Amino acid sequence: MATIITLLTDFGTRDSYVAELKAVLASQAHPALLIDVTHEVPPGDIASAQYILARVWQRFPRGTVHVVIVDPGVGTSRRALAAESGGQFFVAPDNGLLSALPPETRFVELPIPPGVSPTFHARDVFAPAAAQLANGTALPHLGHAIKDPVRLERPAARAEGSTIIGQVVYIDRFGTLVTNIPGAGLDAGARVTVGDRDVGPLYRTFGDVGQGELVALIGSGGTLEVAVREGSAAALLGGKLGMEVRARVTRPA
Amino acid sequence: MATIITLLTDFGTRDSYVAELKAVLASQAHPALLIDVTHEVPPGDIASAQYILARVWQRFPRGTVHVVIVDPGVGTSRRALAAESGGQFFVAPDNGLLSALPPETRFVELPIPPGVSPTFHARDVFAPAAAQLANGTALPHLGHAIKDPVRLERPAARAEGSTIIGQVVYIDRFGTLVTNIPGAGLDAGARVTVGDRDVGPLYRTFGDVGQGELVALIGSGGTLEVAVREGSAAALLGGKLGMEVRARVTRPA
Amino acid sequence: MATIITLLTDFGTRDSYVAELKAVLASQAHPALLIDVTHEVPPGDIASAQYILARVWQRFPRGTVHVVIVDPGVGTSRRALAAESGGQFFVAPDNGLLSALPPETRFVELPIPPGVSPTFHARDVFAPAAAQLANGTALPHLGHAIKDPVRLERPAARAEGSTIIGQVVYIDRFGTLVTNIPGAGLDAGARVTVGDRDVGPLYRTFGDVGQGELVALIGSGGTLEVAVREGSAAALLGGKLGMEVRARVTRPA
Repeated sequence: MATIITLLTDFGTRDSYVAELKAVLASQAHPALLIDVTHEVPPGDIASAQYILARVWQRFPRGTVHVVIVDPGVGTSRRALAAESGGQFFVAPDNGLLSALPPETRFVELPIPPGVSPTFHARDVFAPAAAQLANGTALPHLGHAIKDPVRLERPAARAEGSTIIGQVVYIDRFGTLVTNIPGAGLDAGARVTVGDRDVGPLYRTFGDVGQGELVALIGSGGTLEVAVREGSAAALLGGKLGMEVRARVTRPA
Repeated sequence: MATIITLLTDFGTRDSYVAELKAVLASQAHPALLIDVTHEVPPGDIASAQYILARVWQRFPRGTVHVVIVDPGVGTSRRALAAESGGQFFVAPDNGLLSALPPETRFVELPIPPGVSPTFHARDVFAPAAAQLANGTALPHLGHAIKDPVRLERPAARAEGSTIIGQVVYIDRFGTLVTNIPGAGLDAGARVTVGDRDVGPLYRTFGDVGQGELVALIGSGGTLEVAVREGSAAALLGGKLGMEVRARVTRPA
Repeated sequence: MATIITLLTDFGTRDSYVAELKAVLASQAHPALLIDVTHEVPPGDIASAQYILARVWQRFPRGTVHVVIVDPGVGTSRRALAAESGGQFFVAPDNGLLSALPPETRFVELPIPPGVSPTFHARDVFAPAAAQLANGTALPHLGHAIKDPVRLERPAARAEGSTIIGQVVYIDRFGTLVTNIPGAGLDAGARVTVGDRDVGPLYRTFGDVGQGELVALIGSGGTLEVAVREGSAAALLGGKLGMEVRARVTRPA
């Protein structure tokens, strides 16, 4: 069965680790494509990894298997998971990486066979499980069902009168501050502030402001973003994950 | 139809953007290979991206589809293009990225459907068009023909007597200065200067000089390059894009 | 024949070089997968590249072709090699990159055709040879057999009484110091020092110590490693390649 396997890790790309994973996948399954989502998650940054997974997984076709590894607790008693949602499959340590999957997702706990490396379950536990899923093995054959996977609390935006208050939940390589304020609730007259800095009104795209200027817009993930045209909002505003962002709308939702 | 799709962007590899592109491509087409040319183009650097594309595209087989995205004008009135040349296909914003394609290239303007993200045409406009091309849809079905794509002026080297005067057009990760002086016009006695610094005679390869020494040679792209063996010519010479390079030949062409 | 081709180079990923290689491979063969082992080997660092190759190649299936290029001597009289071991294939410059292959490995010298770029044998010599191997051409058809490939001396750990003395042979992106001390010779009471710094006893995994603390463990490559939990041992200890590491065991092997 020719399927797609994706990889999302904090391994970086300069060592042998990603290739060891891929060698296992290519030896034990016959994926049509091996797609690197990214390996540049900051080491141990589960929140950023789950944000990235949340953005991408639903765009892949049914049958895709996602290998998601940010695993500071490798070799401890943290559980190893496989999951299925909407016909797609996931393997990941049980630390919140799969928090974005919908409530009806099915989870099983993968056994840790004796003799595997206590520091590299990605290669020795998760990749073999992913290969089995790619080969068509049904999820229940991989382990016993569990109902209580670790879920990260994902902060939601809230409304206070005509102001929607949210947070920076991701910062991309351009320094754009991605928030959790849904774009659907904003109108053309919305006015955005980051911390106590006025960013201005909501625009459509970068080119609507001058070079080096701040711009608030509804980003490609569907939420409010604050960027600098051909520059970095994170640098200009000292933006950090969790920083408060406010949008005052003219027509409260 | 099993084809190759390549990707050349300035998105970097740490965010979800490249994977969102690939998810669309893998969902809407069945590429045999998805090849990353690079995602490390400096943000917005159209000139470097078109140089890279110029070096690689002709080496790919017929039927290959190239997705080329450096798009500072995304969401503005800049046009979206698809193109065909020599049996290969291209999608790119109309900002000069495809300047290296030959004059007989056919271009069409892609429509921007309502509802697409104004900041991520790569995913919502270009990837679907690339998938259609990979599936065998003929170019004219994707949009109306245009004759006036944006072309970057690509500076040419010129001769003044026995001296050929050109420019640095690309600097690679090793700090090698790549020029636009064709190697074919140089002879074994050619003498090279960068700015007012004598680089010495033309050599064949790095190993012809000592470690840390400057070396001028005809690079793998067919033009004059100035390198430092196991070092960086850009660092040593303060080399910048556009910097003047001269080669005095003993037998003027 | 649908085979796997891997690439391991020091080319980086921001220039056109890797894509030029892949274009040749995809034009001259039909690989099922093109797998990047890494392109981030420090420029010219043959020892690190051969370490990475040693870790990964045996995990790939029979028939895999490995393109291994760290080539500071490109264009000089250094030989170009193809090799076969255990049903897998290799192309590499003759500078020690293939030192990890077992003694029974067969080697041939690839001819350098006239007209190839003296600075890019990866594209013009090695990739075409790899494509031929991927297409099923037998090794002896690619060149004449040689028996004396360059072998890097790979330092081995030695025992002095109850102390095993080895070296740092690789430092990964997390700053973990990987040694050449075999894990099999260590027992639970082993005590580890790096230079004159006591690292403590042997643990199983990172989570066995507190955040920011040093931990010695048997790494996923099967040898002793010294790490910092959620930190960098290289930074903390000033670790360098070749640095001495000692493990005093309670039951000498």
